[in-house]
Amino acid sequence: MKEKIKVGIIGSAGYTGGETLRLLLNHPYVEVAFVQSRSQAGKPVTSTHTDLLGETDLLYSADFNPAVDVLFLCMSHGESKKLLDEHIFPAATRIIDLGNDFRLNNKTGDREFVYGLPEYQREKITAAKNVANPGCFATTIQLGLLPLAKAGILKEVHTTGITGSTGAGQKLQDTTHFTWRANNISAYKTLTHQHLGEIYQTLKALQPGFSEAVHFVPWRGDFTRGIFVTSLVTTALSLEAIIKLYEDYYAPHPFTHVIRETIDLKQVVNTNKCLINLEKVGDKLAIHSITDNLLKGASGQAVQNMNLMFGLEETEGLRLKGTAF
Amino acid sequence: MKEKIKVGIIGSAGYTGGETLRLLLNHPYVEVAFVQSRSQAGKPVTSTHTDLLGETDLLYSADFNPAVDVLFLCMSHGESKKLLDEHIFPAATRIIDLGNDFRLNNKTGDREFVYGLPEYQREKITAAKNVANPGCFATTIQLGLLPLAKAGILKEVHTTGITGSTGAGQKLQDTTHFTWRANNISAYKTLTHQHLGEIYQTLKALQPGFSEAVHFVPWRGDFTRGIFVTSLVTTALSLEAIIKLYEDYYAPHPFTHVIRETIDLKQVVNTNKCLINLEKVGDKLAIHSITDNLLKGASGQAVQNMNLMFGLEETEGLRLKGTAF
Amino acid sequence: MKEKIKVGIIGSAGYTGGETLRLLLNHPYVEVAFVQSRSQAGKPVTSTHTDLLGETDLLYSADFNPAVDVLFLCMSHGESKKLLDEHIFPAATRIIDLGNDFRLNNKTGDREFVYGLPEYQREKITAAKNVANPGCFATTIQLGLLPLAKAGILKEVHTTGITGSTGAGQKLQDTTHFTWRANNISAYKTLTHQHLGEIYQTLKALQPGFSEAVHFVPWRGDFTRGIFVTSLVTTALSLEAIIKLYEDYYAPHPFTHVIRETIDLKQVVNTNKCLINLEKVGDKLAIHSITDNLLKGASGQAVQNMNLMFGLEETEGLRLKGTAF
Amino acid sequence: MKEKIKVGIIGSAGYTGGETLRLLLNHPYVEVAFVQSRSQAGKPVTSTHTDLLGETDLLYSADFNPAVDVLFLCMSHGESKKLLDEHIFPAATRIIDLGNDFRLNNKTGDREFVYGLPEYQREKITAAKNVANPGCFATTIQLGLLPLAKAGILKEVHTTGITGSTGAGQKLQDTTHFTWRANNISAYKTLTHQHLGEIYQTLKALQPGFSEAVHFVPWRGDFTRGIFVTSLVTTALSLEAIIKLYEDYYAPHPFTHVIRETIDLKQVVNTNKCLINLEKVGDKLAIHSITDNLLKGASGQAVQNMNLMFGLEETEGLRLKGTAF
Repeated sequence: MKEKIKVGIIGSAGYTGGETLRLLLNHPYVEVAFVQSRSQAGKPVTSTHTDLLGETDLLYSADFNPAVDVLFLCMSHGESKKLLDEHIFPAATRIIDLGNDFRLNNKTGDREFVYGLPEYQREKITAAKNVANPGCFATTIQLGLLPLAKAGILKEVHTTGITGSTGAGQKLQDTTHFTWRANNISAYKTLTHQHLGEIYQTLKALQPGFSEAVHFVPWRGDFTRGIFVTSLVTTALSLEAIIKLYEDYYAPHPFTHVIRETIDLKQVVNTNKCLINLEKVGDKLAIHSITDNLLKGASGQAVQNMNLMFGLEETEGLRLKGTAF
Repeated sequence: MKEKIKVGIIGSAGYTGGETLRLLLNHPYVEVAFVQSRSQAGKPVTSTHTDLLGETDLLYSADFNPAVDVLFLCMSHGESKKLLDEHIFPAATRIIDLGNDFRLNNKTGDREFVYGLPEYQREKITAAKNVANPGCFATTIQLGLLPLAKAGILKEVHTTGITGSTGAGQKLQDTTHFTWRANNISAYKTLTHQHLGEIYQTLKALQPGFSEAVHFVPWRGDFTRGIFVTSLVTTALSLEAIIKLYEDYYAPHPFTHVIRETIDLKQVVNTNKCLINLEKVGDKLAIHSITDNLLKGASGQAVQNMNLMFGLEETEGLRLKGTAF
Repeated sequence: MKEKIKVGIIGSAGYTGGETLRLLLNHPYVEVAFVQSRSQAGKPVTSTHTDLLGETDLLYSADFNPAVDVLFLCMSHGESKKLLDEHIFPAATRIIDLGNDFRLNNKTGDREFVYGLPEYQREKITAAKNVANPGCFATTIQLGLLPLAKAGILKEVHTTGITGSTGAGQKLQDTTHFTWRANNISAYKTLTHQHLGEIYQTLKALQPGFSEAVHFVPWRGDFTRGIFVTSLVTTALSLEAIIKLYEDYYAPHPFTHVIRETIDLKQVVNTNKCLINLEKVGDKLAIHSITDNLLKGASGQAVQNMNLMFGLEETEGLRLKGTAF
Repeated sequence: MKEKIKVGIIGSAGYTGGETLRLLLNHPYVEVAFVQSRSQAGKPVTSTHTDLLGETDLLYSADFNPAVDVLFLCMSHGESKKLLDEHIFPAATRIIDLGNDFRLNNKTGDREFVYGLPEYQREKITAAKNVANPGCFATTIQLGLLPLAKAGILKEVHTTGITGSTGAGQKLQDTTHFTWRANNISAYKTLTHQHLGEIYQTLKALQPGFSEAVHFVPWRGDFTRGIFVTSLVTTALSLEAIIKLYEDYYAPHPFTHVIRETIDLKQVVNTNKCLINLEKVGDKLAIHSITDNLLKGASGQAVQNMNLMFGLEETEGLRLKGTAF
C-alpha cells in the first residue's frame, strides 16, 4: 500500500476548488489535509458544496499548512503569485496552480512552473515541482491543434468555442443571471480571449516559426458544464492522413481520443476526457474538440498532473462516471 | 378614433415594468407618456430592455408627471404605498399597482383599491379608480378554485406550484444564478407563501364561512416564464358536473379556458391566458392551472384591468403571439 | 377599411405552418380561408397547435381552395414543386413558398419566384407574384454580409452558427430527443449546409466576381428558438467605416438593426427582427447576427413578404411582443 | 484480493442498462461478462453509449450466458417475467430485475424476489437470491415516508413529484421531443401512477392497518435527471421529534441523509444519494426528498443491492463524483 499524498487546497469555496475537492475525496492515494477559504473559514465545506452533504465533515480553515506534499491553488487570477510571494513554502511542497499566473511568466522566486498540459509535455510534468494548469478553452483548443503543430503543418486557425456558465465562476453577474442566460447565446472577448497567449506559446514551441493567427471567438452557452470548439484550418493532407496523425499522437494518452463518429458535448461532461472529431471538405479541415471545462479544463487536469508528478497511474481517481445525459 | 390613454410607468427597469412597457408600446389606444426609473434615469429604455433596440427611443425619466390618465406602479413591495403617501396625485389619475401593498389593506388616503382579478369581480374593476393587481401564484391558484368557491363547495386544498425564475425578479441572487438553477428544482416558503393572504380573502368572500386551509408548496423551476399549479380537493360531484361548473363560470371571460385535454405550461407562455384542466380519481379532484407569471400573473393582467377601467375591449393589446415552443 | 386578404396555408400542422397561422390570426388585414393538412384533416388546429386553445375554432381541411389571394406553402422540401406541378392554380393566386424548392431554380411552369429577402431586394418582392422564402441560416448569415457584398469588398468568410431545435422540425429524431439535446452542443453538416447555395447566389449577384468561399459550420444548440451567427472576414476598413456602411444599408429596413452594444440571442426571440453587432481586431472583422429562426428565418419573413406583395405596411401584423426572457 | 463477481446485463442499450454498465465498468469487484441487446447485437456498446468511447471495447451480444454470478435485467416492463419463464437459468445465478415485474407479484417458478429497497429491508436483501429493484418515484416517495410508517403514525399523504426526461426512457415520444419539453411542465398519470402499488405494499407492511391514501401527482420536468418530491402529512409531533425519528431511522444507511438546510435537486444528480428535508407549519409536515432517478432510482440502487447480496461494502463502486452544477 502506497503512503497517501497529503494535499491542501487553497481557495476551496469556488467551482474549481470544489471540483478539486470532489475528486480528491474519492482519490485512493490522497489525504486531504485542509481546505482553506478565507470567506468560509470555520464553516463545513458542505455549507457551500452542498452536494457533499452526508459525505464529509471537513471544515474550511482560515490558515493553511505549507508543509503538505502538494498544494492546489484555486484562486482568482493574480492571487497565486501574491500568495507565493508573501508566504514561505518549504521547497519540498509541490504546487499546482489552477489560475493563470504562471502559464506565461513561469517563475516566481525559486519556483519554476511547467505548463501542465500532459498531452503536450507529459515528461516535463512528471519531473516538475510546480505546475501551471492550463485554461479551459486553452486546453480544448490546443488538444485540437497539437498534432498539426507537432507535424509542422499548422496554418491560420479560425476557431469558435462555446462554454458553460461555470466558466464564468461563482460570482453573481448579469451574464450568469438565470433569467438572462437560459436559452440564450452571446459572444464575448471576440478575438481577444486571455487564453490566446498560452495557446500561441505552445504552438510556437511545437512548430518553430509558426507565425499565423488563431482567430478565436468565444460564445457563452446556456448550459453549465462543457466546452465545444470547432477550429478550421487549411491543409492539403487527406482526411485519412490527418486522422492517422491524430491517432498516433494521442495513442499514448489515456484521456484524449480521436473519434470517427460525430461527437456531442455531453459525451465528456463530468469526465476528464477530451474527444476529437475531424472532418474535411475541399482543403478545409474542421477539428471539433470537447471537454468538461471544470475537469479536463481545470480540476481534473490538475489531478492528472498530480498523478504524473507523484508517479501514480495517470488516470488514478479520474475514471469518473460521466453524466451521459 | 378614440383618444389615446396617457400612461406612465413607475419602476420601469424591472421585469414587470418592462413587460408592461412592451405591452403598452403595442397597445393601439395607449400613449406612453413616461417611463420612470430612479436607477436608470436619463438612459434609453433599451439600455436595460435590450430586446426593444430598434423599436423605441424612449428615455427613462427621473421624475414623473402625476397628471396622466393612469399610472402603473411596478415597484418593490412596500414602495407603492410610500410613493402615494409622499406625493400628491390628482384625483383623476387612476392607479394600477402591481405590488402587494393594497391587495389586503386596500386604502391609502382617499384612494381605495379594488382587487384586480377580472374573473372574480370584473364589474368592480370596471368601475374602479384604483386597482391592486394580484400576485402571480395568487392568480393561478385562484383561477383554479373560483368556481368551487362560488358554488360553495370548496374544501381543504393541497396545492403545489412551480414558477419560472422571472418570479424572483431581476436582482442577482444565489437562487437565480444560472449555474445553480439550471436543471434544478427546489422548494421555498413551504406552506407560508405571501400570496396565501389574498387567496384566502377571495375564497372567504366567495364562499362565506370557508375556513379550511390552502396548503401551498411553491417550487422554483429551471425555466424563466410561467407557473404550473396542481390543486387537490375532495368533492362528491362528478367530473362532468365540475367541468360544467367551470365552463359556465369562465364562459364570459376571454382569457381563461377550461381544456379537456391535458395541458402543458408552454401553451400560455408569452400570452395573457390561463388554461385549466380537471381530472378526478375517486373523490379527489385535481385542478391543473397555468399562466405566464409576468403576463396573466402581472403585467398582462394589469393591462387587462386598464382596458376594463377605460371601457376598452378587455383583450385590447393582449392578443399576443405566444412563444408556443 | 381595406378589404381583407384571403389566405390559405398548406402544410399547416408543422412548425412553420403553425407560426404562419399564429401570425395571420392576429393580422388585421388577413382572413384565413383554410388551413390544410393531410395528416390532420378534420381535426381542430388546436389539436396540434395546442397553444391556440381558446383562440380559434378552425379545423384542418384535407382540400384547399386554389383561388385565394395568397397561398403559404409550409411543406417539406420538394413537395412545393410537386404540388404546383400536379394542381392547377389560378394565375391570380400568389404563392409564398417556405420550402427550398424555388430559391435556386426559380421557375415551375409559368410561375417565376423572387427570392424573398426584403433587405436584399425589396422592390422585386413588392412586384412579385411568387416568392421563395429564404432559409433560416441563409437569412441570418446573409443579413450579416449584404452591406460588404454591396460595397464589393467581401472576402473569404468563416462562419459558425448555432440553431434552436425548431430548425430541425417536428418529426421525432435522435437529435431532438430531449434527453440527448438538453445541455448539449453538436456540429452537423460541417461546411456542407444546404443553405450555402442561396447564400452564394445572393453574394455573387451583389458583388459580381465574388469567388471566395463561405466556410460555414452549423451547430445544434440546446434551446428551441433562434439563430446566433458569427462571421469572420478580413478587411482594411476601419470599424467606424464599416458600421456606417451597415447603418446606411439597413436604415430603410424596419426589422434589421445595427447595434453598438453586444447582442444576445433572446433580444430577437419571438420577433421578426435581426440584430447585427460588429467588432474588429486587427484586420479581422467579426459580424454577429441574430434572428428567430421561425420568424425572421421563416414565417415572419413570409408574412413580411406578403405585406410587401400586397402593398401593406411592411411591419403589419409583425410588431410582436418578444419573449425577452 | 476478492474474486470478481461475473455479471451480465440484459437489455443493455437503454438508459438503465447503460447506467448499470457505467457503474459496473468502474466497480472494483466486478467483471462484466456480457452486455446483451437484441437490437444492437454485434455493435460496440459505444455505438449507443457514446460517452464510453475510449473507455471500453465491449460488444453487445445477441445471446447471454445464464451461468454468471448475477444478471441485471434492464428491460421493458413485462419482459423480465417472459425471459425467466422461457429460459432456464442455473439456480445459483442471482437476478436483479430493474423492471416492475416482481415488485408486487414476487414469484416466478422457483424464484422468489425480495423488494430491493435497502433502507426498508436491508437484511432480507442481503440474504436474497433475487431482487426486484424499486421504481424511481417509488424509491423517492417511500424514503420520505418510511420513518413515519415504521413509527405507526403515517396518515393521508398528498404528494407532488417532478421527474427528469430519462424517466420516460429512450424511445422517441411527443413528450420527450426537445422542442416540446424544453422550458415546459406538465402533469401525467394524475393520482394513478403505477408506482403506487409498491408504495402501498411497503407502507402497509411497516404500519399494519394503514388504510389511508397516497394522493400522488407526477409532473414532467424540463431536465434530464432527478426526482424532487414533496409529501404533505398531518402529524401532532413536533418538528424536532420528527427530525430525530428520521435521523435515527437513517443513521445506519449510507446513502440517505436527513438535511437541516433546504435542499435542491442537483445535490444528488449523478450520485446514489437521497436527501431529505423536513419542514412543519401548524400540524402539517412537508417532507422533501430527492434522488437521481437513474441511480438511487434505478441502476445505482441495483448495484447497491448487488453489493449487499454479495457481502461487499454497501457503497462499493457507488462513491460517485456528483455533477454538482
